Amino acid sequence: MLQVGPPAETERADAVRNRARILDAARTILDASGVDALTMDAVAREAGLGKGTVFRRFGSRSQLLLTLLNSTEEEFQRGFLAGPPPLGPGANPVDRLIAFGRARLDLLGVQGDLLRAAEASAESRYSSPARAASVLHITMLLRSGGVQGDVPVLATTLNSTLDAALVLHENRVGSVSMERIANGWEDLVRRVTAPQQT
Amino acid sequence: MLQVGPPAETERADAVRNRARILDAARTILDASGVDALTMDAVAREAGLGKGTVFRRFGSRSQLLLTLLNSTEEEFQRGFLAGPPPLGPGANPVDRLIAFGRARLDLLGVQGDLLRAAEASAESRYSSPARAASVLHITMLLRSGGVQGDVPVLATTLNSTLDAALVLHENRVGSVSMERIANGWEDLVRRVTAPQQT
Repeated sequence: MLQVGPPAETERADAVRNRARILDAARTILDASGVDALTMDAVAREAGLGKGTVFRRFGSRSQLLLTLLNSTEEEFQRGFLAGPPPLGPGANPVDRLIAFGRARLDLLGVQGDLLRAAEASAESRYSSPARAASVLHITMLLRSGGVQGDVPVLATTLNSTLDAALVLHENRVGSVSMERIANGWEDLVRRVTAPQQT
Repeated sequence: MLQVGPPAETERADAVRNRARILDAARTILDASGVDALTMDAVAREAGLGKGTVFRRFGSRSQLLLTLLNSTEEEFQRGFLAGPPPLGPGANPVDRLIAFGRARLDLLGVQGDLLRAAEASAESRYSSPARAASVLHITMLLRSGGVQGDVPVLATTLNSTLDAALVLHENRVGSVSMERIANGWEDLVRRVTAPQQT
């Protein structure tokens, strides 16, 4: 094989490739077996890399989890800020709001454990930038939809119903299907955005 | 002083009295300085009892916290199940629902730290009997108020907006006043219980 570029560049390319392999492996484990199965050993095995390489790229398990979480949240944000309608711009605000909750619940169905792990501390649970972005987005959609009143407080309220721990509890312990929870979200949005009688 | 009754009875009476004094002292500390200040030492000092007596009555700090929490939740439940209207029976369902959230938020304003400490574990946060009683009560009121649809899911949703960690975050970090949060609850209840257009 021909070596293209100087060794330093090859090393950088290796690092980028390994990083992507590790993240892919971590997602595979997460989807198949949940967050508890996501050990550095398991990730190294799944990625076909040495454990040292995994630690060199991510430092610690919690660093790896945080990276996974950030990429999940970024993808979700791209979807509701700039993705295709009805989640992204172009649909009417009520439909976008319904799509927002449904997309979030879909994500919780797949990566709920990861998202719940991130919410674990009671003090920090509501402080994440991802949550702030969601509340802001809901506020914007409620206002576009002509909802009057204390919209930021209403948006916070609506967002709290998509809390990972709550949804996973309802689904796993309470045996409420994700479809029922998603329909409940739509029902709530329609009630909240319906023209008010005065 | 005359000794009334046999020694065993006196000892039992002392135990009951000390227990009450310890709980009073714990509530005083909780209201004045929050849950972090509630150490066994501080409770003994406030109650004017030896630390040994506090440990003999409650075993551990977490046992004491649990006892406080249970008595708080029992009192709250007595209020909404059998207290005077509008919280208790006798008022119309929408007014009772509004009163329910307002009473819960009042409680969070005073004992929020304690309630949040009890919600701390992500897995157990939604498993408490107190929460189940609240969701059941909201379900009952929504049904009495003629709300159609998947009422249990809607009730869960409404209850989640009264989550201690959420409310305390909004209030302390987000600087949203408890009054605004309570008005937001009323607004949400009115929207949700308004007759639906079909």
